Amino acid sequence: MGKVVDMNSDMGESFGAYTLGNDQELMAYISSANVACGFHAGDPKTMRETVKHALESGVGIGAHPGLQDLIGFGRRPMEITPEEGYDLVLYQIGALLGMTKAEGGTLHHVKPHGALYNMAAKNKELAMAIAKAVYHLDSTLVLYGLAGSALIDAGNEVGLQTASEVFADRTYQADGSLTSRRSPDALIHDPEQASKQVLRMVKEGKVMTQQGEDIDIVADTICIHGDGAHALAFAKDIHAKMTASGITVQRIKA
Amino acid sequence: MGKVVDMNSDMGESFGAYTLGNDQELMAYISSANVACGFHAGDPKTMRETVKHALESGVGIGAHPGLQDLIGFGRRPMEITPEEGYDLVLYQIGALLGMTKAEGGTLHHVKPHGALYNMAAKNKELAMAIAKAVYHLDSTLVLYGLAGSALIDAGNEVGLQTASEVFADRTYQADGSLTSRRSPDALIHDPEQASKQVLRMVKEGKVMTQQGEDIDIVADTICIHGDGAHALAFAKDIHAKMTASGITVQRIKA
Amino acid sequence: MGKVVDMNSDMGESFGAYTLGNDQELMAYISSANVACGFHAGDPKTMRETVKHALESGVGIGAHPGLQDLIGFGRRPMEITPEEGYDLVLYQIGALLGMTKAEGGTLHHVKPHGALYNMAAKNKELAMAIAKAVYHLDSTLVLYGLAGSALIDAGNEVGLQTASEVFADRTYQADGSLTSRRSPDALIHDPEQASKQVLRMVKEGKVMTQQGEDIDIVADTICIHGDGAHALAFAKDIHAKMTASGITVQRIKA
Amino acid sequence: MGKVVDMNSDMGESFGAYTLGNDQELMAYISSANVACGFHAGDPKTMRETVKHALESGVGIGAHPGLQDLIGFGRRPMEITPEEGYDLVLYQIGALLGMTKAEGGTLHHVKPHGALYNMAAKNKELAMAIAKAVYHLDSTLVLYGLAGSALIDAGNEVGLQTASEVFADRTYQADGSLTSRRSPDALIHDPEQASKQVLRMVKEGKVMTQQGEDIDIVADTICIHGDGAHALAFAKDIHAKMTASGITVQRIKA
Repeated sequence: MGKVVDMNSDMGESFGAYTLGNDQELMAYISSANVACGFHAGDPKTMRETVKHALESGVGIGAHPGLQDLIGFGRRPMEITPEEGYDLVLYQIGALLGMTKAEGGTLHHVKPHGALYNMAAKNKELAMAIAKAVYHLDSTLVLYGLAGSALIDAGNEVGLQTASEVFADRTYQADGSLTSRRSPDALIHDPEQASKQVLRMVKEGKVMTQQGEDIDIVADTICIHGDGAHALAFAKDIHAKMTASGITVQRIKA
Repeated sequence: MGKVVDMNSDMGESFGAYTLGNDQELMAYISSANVACGFHAGDPKTMRETVKHALESGVGIGAHPGLQDLIGFGRRPMEITPEEGYDLVLYQIGALLGMTKAEGGTLHHVKPHGALYNMAAKNKELAMAIAKAVYHLDSTLVLYGLAGSALIDAGNEVGLQTASEVFADRTYQADGSLTSRRSPDALIHDPEQASKQVLRMVKEGKVMTQQGEDIDIVADTICIHGDGAHALAFAKDIHAKMTASGITVQRIKA
Repeated sequence: MGKVVDMNSDMGESFGAYTLGNDQELMAYISSANVACGFHAGDPKTMRETVKHALESGVGIGAHPGLQDLIGFGRRPMEITPEEGYDLVLYQIGALLGMTKAEGGTLHHVKPHGALYNMAAKNKELAMAIAKAVYHLDSTLVLYGLAGSALIDAGNEVGLQTASEVFADRTYQADGSLTSRRSPDALIHDPEQASKQVLRMVKEGKVMTQQGEDIDIVADTICIHGDGAHALAFAKDIHAKMTASGITVQRIKA
Repeated sequence: MGKVVDMNSDMGESFGAYTLGNDQELMAYISSANVACGFHAGDPKTMRETVKHALESGVGIGAHPGLQDLIGFGRRPMEITPEEGYDLVLYQIGALLGMTKAEGGTLHHVKPHGALYNMAAKNKELAMAIAKAVYHLDSTLVLYGLAGSALIDAGNEVGLQTASEVFADRTYQADGSLTSRRSPDALIHDPEQASKQVLRMVKEGKVMTQQGEDIDIVADTICIHGDGAHALAFAKDIHAKMTASGITVQRIKA
């Protein structure tokens, strides 16, 4: 059987009168949608409509829970206890589960958002709390996390299927972590270089770090940004290159 | 088989540093708990803990969705479309469903809160939207509403089991509606009179209106207030009187 | 002295990651900016930056308080008491007053937003509560309200300077009220007809109602929509036509 | 002239249906009230009523701005930029300034709340941003902060009058900082020992650290907790002991 990879994108981040992203167009090029659940973005109407579009497009539906910080879009780290992490993740997944059931679909995965994603990549206790919340709610859900992170470890430990996520346009450090956004080298601005990096990660399981050495990396799913002028073109390009390389783009098998 | 009645109470209305109600003590005298879902009251931690206590007490767990108005405790009517009602109810029930599943329990019922309850008692379109949200999410849930209200009609119409709710300490009008709180006669202040009224509603299916005539009323479930100095004593008393009259207090059979 | 008129627009309605409106471009064509204060739209950063831009543009700064309903953008009527209206208006004006003082400016006016504006146009008690809140905070502020509304009456009664607002693209009823948005005739879609109507209101103090009769109308200030594809072009056009007719566009003299 | 000290307490922390604290009773024993401004606690009605009570009691009115985290009561540290700190403090002080002006009073001071207070005690840039926000809004306001903290330094640097705050029931480290709440020695549980410590800080400007050495400490104002069963008795006791020692309890002279 040939190689497969998942392409996921954050969706449903509009809120009331505010519109964000190109959800509808992007659906054609991804296999999994991470739907905002109301804490960092997403109102009930947006959530339901996004679930509906994802079902119509045959895209896997995932909960995308975040910190309760609408002004900061869930991007500002906050000191929460593991128990608080457990509860806020459970609440948000449940809300999206309700939407998905009502629309006749099945929830497929969970990917924490923004600061919560980053905190769970390093904080083992928080990662375990999140993994347990997912497992207790529905043990067949797939947990998405940064490749090589504490969240992936935690998911595996509690018995969840996990999906290791890689980034086309971010550079990597020798320990497999992403270069901090505070560093000038954090981003790959050249689309060609970005698609080359991600193709290699998927095909060979390797990435060249900022330190100039190859490391192993698990690339189950590729993060596709939904925002910005070039998001759509980039998604289309990655999708085409994967297909051209004999790699099937499909959601993670739960 | 003897007569049965359900006794329900609003619970889980604490929020963060703020504590409200006597949930723990009250659990012994009721058969169904309506758990606030975060919009008018209730934070994720409070919700999960309330679900846990209800399970330990063998009390039926219900979602208690409200308008998104924490300052007004969901008591201020707001002009929402039926679609907005559908979405906000779905979101909140889902959130509590997640909590309940994670704790190993089963969601039993849904009772709208405050202004949403009152609006759905009279507004047929909103009532239908709420009933559909409940049905689409889980058609085995019981829908609680004011006896004789549009919400009960809507629930029956979409195919849900419904529970007609009566109040011990509220007076009734000739058309079966509650006397408006703006009227000086809205409340029955004498506990004896209140328990007599509710006992008669359950045993005989009759209530004497403010206009001095008896009308028929369906009394599947009694609303027990959780707040206030005498709430606990009153719940205990009603429970004892029901039992003494050969009426079994038990949750609505779904 | 020649005729003068104020042109006002709602501004600062962005929120966190969400951008709304064309504030910067529009500033050149208006004389007064109504700045959202955080309840229906507007975060502290957006508020401060909008105040700064208004000061740089020589535009009068007004508070634009709304109902606490971010999801509904403050457009859904809500049953609040006059006292609640007083308090929420006071809170929001104060917040913007702080921003304005810190930026070295002076607050010029107050215009309620959306549902609050409409409710205060008809509900005399709420209108008085809002007028008193403005007066108690700073009796030199100008109160903006719908021409002929209860809010204008209330402002005059408490001793505030008021500014009667007219709309270019809305049709009027015989009693001077706006045609309800639920009616198909609510809006004037032809820009030429809209600018003719508003020019006549300013120059002659007359408007032709949907019932086909002329009525008197006070036109101190024109509402300029900030949103939508044609907002900027329309504002520019109205401004040019006013100037060409010898009418000076300038903020209300407080 | 004899020694003076200020006694301050957090107030106005109720929210909607939720009541917290013993504000009314406590007013008799303090000289300054820090009024919550809506982000971590306090709704507009509570704010206005607290301001009114403070004015009636002759107590100095201070803004008590916090992080926007109602569920966490503003106690969870959050990574905010200095600019975000500037804006959120400005917004909240302005809101309370509006309330105070409308009630005919004058705003006296600003004391950040909870996590914001602690963050500003150590983070020099955030401290400067807060101090500037206060200064830009009204340069006559007194800035309250932990004795010896970065916030007091920042206040002095921008030209504000500052008030160094001490705690009766917290233990101190050799560098003048408070013992972390995570340490078992953080709190002084014996009321006698607590009042002795605070009396000595005020009279002698000395405190014995956990390391067993005396250090100098500036004690302009004493933090009086408003919550808990013994808060009122403790406030009364401290007030009586100060007076008995010839120390006048009065607000900081602005």
